[in-house]
Amino acid sequence: MSFNSVIFRHLTINEPRFKCIFKIQDSILFSIRSFLRSEGFIEILAPIIGPCTDPGIRGAKLVSIDYYGSKFKVMSSMILYKQMMIKCYPKIFALSPNVRIEPLEAVSTGRHLAEFRQIDLEVAYAKCEDMLNLAERLLKKVIDDVLTNCSDELKFLGRELTPLKIPFKRYTYDEAIELLSSMGYHVSYGCEIPWDAEEALSSLHKEPFWITSYPISARGFYYLEDESRPGFLRDFDLIYPDGYGEAISGGEREYRYEFVVERMRRNCEDPSNYSWYIEMLKDGVPPSAGFGIGVERLTRYICGLRYVWDAVPFPKIPGVISP
Amino acid sequence: MSFNSVIFRHLTINEPRFKCIFKIQDSILFSIRSFLRSEGFIEILAPIIGPCTDPGIRGAKLVSIDYYGSKFKVMSSMILYKQMMIKCYPKIFALSPNVRIEPLEAVSTGRHLAEFRQIDLEVAYAKCEDMLNLAERLLKKVIDDVLTNCSDELKFLGRELTPLKIPFKRYTYDEAIELLSSMGYHVSYGCEIPWDAEEALSSLHKEPFWITSYPISARGFYYLEDESRPGFLRDFDLIYPDGYGEAISGGEREYRYEFVVERMRRNCEDPSNYSWYIEMLKDGVPPSAGFGIGVERLTRYICGLRYVWDAVPFPKIPGVISP
Repeated sequence: MSFNSVIFRHLTINEPRFKCIFKIQDSILFSIRSFLRSEGFIEILAPIIGPCTDPGIRGAKLVSIDYYGSKFKVMSSMILYKQMMIKCYPKIFALSPNVRIEPLEAVSTGRHLAEFRQIDLEVAYAKCEDMLNLAERLLKKVIDDVLTNCSDELKFLGRELTPLKIPFKRYTYDEAIELLSSMGYHVSYGCEIPWDAEEALSSLHKEPFWITSYPISARGFYYLEDESRPGFLRDFDLIYPDGYGEAISGGEREYRYEFVVERMRRNCEDPSNYSWYIEMLKDGVPPSAGFGIGVERLTRYICGLRYVWDAVPFPKIPGVISP
Repeated sequence: MSFNSVIFRHLTINEPRFKCIFKIQDSILFSIRSFLRSEGFIEILAPIIGPCTDPGIRGAKLVSIDYYGSKFKVMSSMILYKQMMIKCYPKIFALSPNVRIEPLEAVSTGRHLAEFRQIDLEVAYAKCEDMLNLAERLLKKVIDDVLTNCSDELKFLGRELTPLKIPFKRYTYDEAIELLSSMGYHVSYGCEIPWDAEEALSSLHKEPFWITSYPISARGFYYLEDESRPGFLRDFDLIYPDGYGEAISGGEREYRYEFVVERMRRNCEDPSNYSWYIEMLKDGVPPSAGFGIGVERLTRYICGLRYVWDAVPFPKIPGVISP
């Protein structure tokens, strides 16, 4: 695996394929925003740094900075802030900047960046079902628009893209584990699905598909536990087909102070590191649901790129020093 | 000056005024993007961190992070990357995340944030005149759209906003210094205009106005020196009226390797700290011009807010620990 395209991007960004990719990315961003505004969302400004951030980031490390003598983090995701913002407005989204110091071996997946952006959205009083439906219509619209507006660019990239068929197939986590087991992948029950298994599952499909209801032990403290199925969450991932892997992560949110504190303790998180968040929950926030969709991974999938780092103008990948 | 609105934002964000402000901000973001797309721009993803960033940030400090054992910076502005991107596409813009550790006394201006966003744009082969014209039409469109779409919100905020008259008045730096001198403000010639003097100048006006042609000693190494007026730059600032102060900074770019290295040396910058940038200039980049417009300051001006920190959902201000 050569990283020349990353290290020398400042010398190679004038290659015609990049012009095509970033024209398509512009179309993607425009479609997402148009669709969300037509659904009643407003766009807000995402945080960049803060006293705490999302710890539920699957083995990646957070970046710490000195902020006027206090230890701050660069945002790994804006999840905690989305719960704040829906106190103000019921449907919000942002283009949110995230930094995660992924382990070095993450480069081997071709789909991990150390710096990336999500379209992050949240809806007050929404349920999982609403979010799955919204995400399906959103992705369909984005791809329809790219097909209409960027056919020359797709052709140049050699990407044969077809309109999505919605709704997407749904698996529960249990069903996905069982399917993986039949394929020879043995996932430790209760853990995240490892990268190689997820890629194998993805390669088995020709359309995006959902995995829902992860065990509580696999995910962050901010997902709501399913009352009708204790030990499991009201959450979901969307997986792209053809080996492209994870697209979306989301779910309903735990919004009750006592439950969050209890979940933090179970995850060995110290609630005192999340003081404003805890204070906010004590004060009361509405229940909500939402998700984040990685912009670079969506671009990679739509453009049919082998590596996610060709889906961003100034890529940062684990362990590699680049512009 | 009380910072309660910043420190307790997680408890007060449901105040009705914030709903109005962020609805207007959404309209601003939407208008800017629609206008720029109609002018042939594409939106790109801005960098968050990198090995070097803009040093020309008027007394603020950069934030350093450890990136896989190397010292990286959180972006203070994406200027160096804009020059890279116009090698790929001739008209680009981004919603760019910036962090600057401003001196503590910067809070007293009411218009400084430690974390903020710019709409950052760049155009290959453009001149100052093109950029002034573009910025004027952009701002006129944004305000016309807010007047049309957010009249209830403006009314709630008590803001009487009127359509802009373009073109805006233009001063050179020399003329601005002379005017300030007649007002009793004595600015050290060749330096930036201090905050209090800029505010006084701003308060004297009822419409935004330009200050062009700063002395070379006042600005970063990436502005082009004016061939017809050595010692002065082909650059510009836009100042809001009524005391709101700085809106836009921009100019034509120095793109010639030898000249940049010479300017770095004069600014006591070590070229070896900018290795990819220097390498890129050696390889060749087109001449260009562009500017950045602060989203929070634009929102503050349009909403008529006393403090810029009420123009952002999750404010960070110099020296104050907040969500």
